[in-house]
Amino acid sequence: MTNAAEPPSTRSETLADLSEGQVLARIFPRLPDADAALLGPGDDCAIVAAPDGRFVVTTDMMIHGPDFRLAWSTPFDLGWKAAATNLSDVAAMGARPTALVVAIAAPPHTPIETIEGIADGLRSACAALSPGCGVVGGDLSASDTLTLAVTAFGDLDGRAAVLRSGARPGDIVALAGRLGEAAAGLELLFREGVDEAGTPNAARADALKVRNPEQLAAQLRPEPPVTLGPVAAECGATAMLDVSDGLAIDAGRIARASGVGIDFRSTALGDHIERALNGGEDHGLLATFPAGSELPSGFRALGTVTAGAGLILVDGKPHSQGGWDPYRGWNGAIG
Amino acid sequence: MTNAAEPPSTRSETLADLSEGQVLARIFPRLPDADAALLGPGDDCAIVAAPDGRFVVTTDMMIHGPDFRLAWSTPFDLGWKAAATNLSDVAAMGARPTALVVAIAAPPHTPIETIEGIADGLRSACAALSPGCGVVGGDLSASDTLTLAVTAFGDLDGRAAVLRSGARPGDIVALAGRLGEAAAGLELLFREGVDEAGTPNAARADALKVRNPEQLAAQLRPEPPVTLGPVAAECGATAMLDVSDGLAIDAGRIARASGVGIDFRSTALGDHIERALNGGEDHGLLATFPAGSELPSGFRALGTVTAGAGLILVDGKPHSQGGWDPYRGWNGAIG
Repeated sequence: MTNAAEPPSTRSETLADLSEGQVLARIFPRLPDADAALLGPGDDCAIVAAPDGRFVVTTDMMIHGPDFRLAWSTPFDLGWKAAATNLSDVAAMGARPTALVVAIAAPPHTPIETIEGIADGLRSACAALSPGCGVVGGDLSASDTLTLAVTAFGDLDGRAAVLRSGARPGDIVALAGRLGEAAAGLELLFREGVDEAGTPNAARADALKVRNPEQLAAQLRPEPPVTLGPVAAECGATAMLDVSDGLAIDAGRIARASGVGIDFRSTALGDHIERALNGGEDHGLLATFPAGSELPSGFRALGTVTAGAGLILVDGKPHSQGGWDPYRGWNGAIG
Repeated sequence: MTNAAEPPSTRSETLADLSEGQVLARIFPRLPDADAALLGPGDDCAIVAAPDGRFVVTTDMMIHGPDFRLAWSTPFDLGWKAAATNLSDVAAMGARPTALVVAIAAPPHTPIETIEGIADGLRSACAALSPGCGVVGGDLSASDTLTLAVTAFGDLDGRAAVLRSGARPGDIVALAGRLGEAAAGLELLFREGVDEAGTPNAARADALKVRNPEQLAAQLRPEPPVTLGPVAAECGATAMLDVSDGLAIDAGRIARASGVGIDFRSTALGDHIERALNGGEDHGLLATFPAGSELPSGFRALGTVTAGAGLILVDGKPHSQGGWDPYRGWNGAIG
């Protein structure tokens, strides 16, 4: 596999060496097919089945610099994570992912293997997280900054969508997925995946991947519980979202949208409570279920919905939220 | 209106000065509503009506450098063109545009007025080209390179999609929209919209906009005949596409997909035949209609579908295609 942190080998073909048609011919066979594709790539638009008569849609960009370092993420990781984070947003509506469109912008000197690796990651993530979902179209552009823009679609199969606004006092607050592991992985990378000057370093990151495989994988190749989104909806979830900015911030979104408070039990948050509450990029599903519900397999209770609009509590005491902001949180380094 | 070519004024707030929530609060009121939006921005996904049970989807990125210069395009132009080019792809399927999602990545020093201008351009383009279509969701990221990624959706209203593969010998070849004007505008900008060193220059571009308003507008703020896409489908169009890479290249796509030739009448191509055939970014609709059809208003005949798989002819003689390629065509300049 190409290590994207190295300068392109003289033997490797770059995007500038190939026509757009040649690049597409290299990546199309690697992309996953979508069961819902009535017409795939090749015309002005793709056509996707929407048997429900509605579709859900989300879009998210991953940008070299603020969102990833090529010394730390392989191209496969990038494709995987771009698919996984969007699939998780679809699942958080209670929808079944049906299709993705993927736009990639890359510098002309990018080796073709980098784009192939991204395609492989997209395919593997769809196969692992949401079988039947695939890529129905895309766009390829030149840019100084490697950028992936994924738009994902899902079908509600006749169900009501699970919004952020449906939680009611007394509901059980439950989570499917990990807490704080992705943040721990990122912290390790910033602390130990850099050289003496603080520059992201591939060899040191590789060593970390061996020593801390779970935390690094949670950060670089997350596995959100996509199939549990529709399951939660079927089981009566009253509110749900994808935990991307940290449990406290995202629970606050449900709390404000629903006009309720959320009280977490500290004993349910693991050994690193602050990291569990404030660490970003978990990509678990946070949902509320009616009191007395039997939680669907894969969800565990973290607390209770209370009165008190917008309040986040831990063991009944107010929690002061941390936070992450895309503009304030980026120091301008690329790596 | 802010001139994005100038360095940010000290009085202007930048993205780095504002939280993501504050930026969204500034741009949401400017974005166009979509009639098809069952749920707009604010949850993990939007929900869009797809009464047909299928939807068409296309995605396209616009990148600072290869795709636009901030000395030439206002933020309003960028938003307009990003919407217009995607709406045209939806129309080319014979579909009615229903909704867009828009991801914007911008450097932290970008003035908030730039993002507001992009939102205004999106709104105005939807209102002018496809009333009822609007923005249902998006994403905002930090990047070294200003990037717009638009994904557009459309409904087929129960019709079959008009693909590239349906043209038959004897069909009329017809166009709605202009030919070569966008390329002429770009040529003017590269020749006269630059300073002595060849750097894109806002004042010179502004002077060109006064002297050559139609050609500059065709390049910077195109007006594809979006509403004519469904009309062409209703009138029996056998094949259709959006002319984005030049008439000859795009006609070649219909010719290859349909296994036919296309013979243009030179007298129908205007005074600048080579520019009409090879100039990019026209964003007209090229369609074929059964022999003897009355063309829908807005379309004019350019020639005839013939036998001969993939051949492009002018007055019966083979035409050698030019071409544009995103990686080979960009010289690395930003401007």
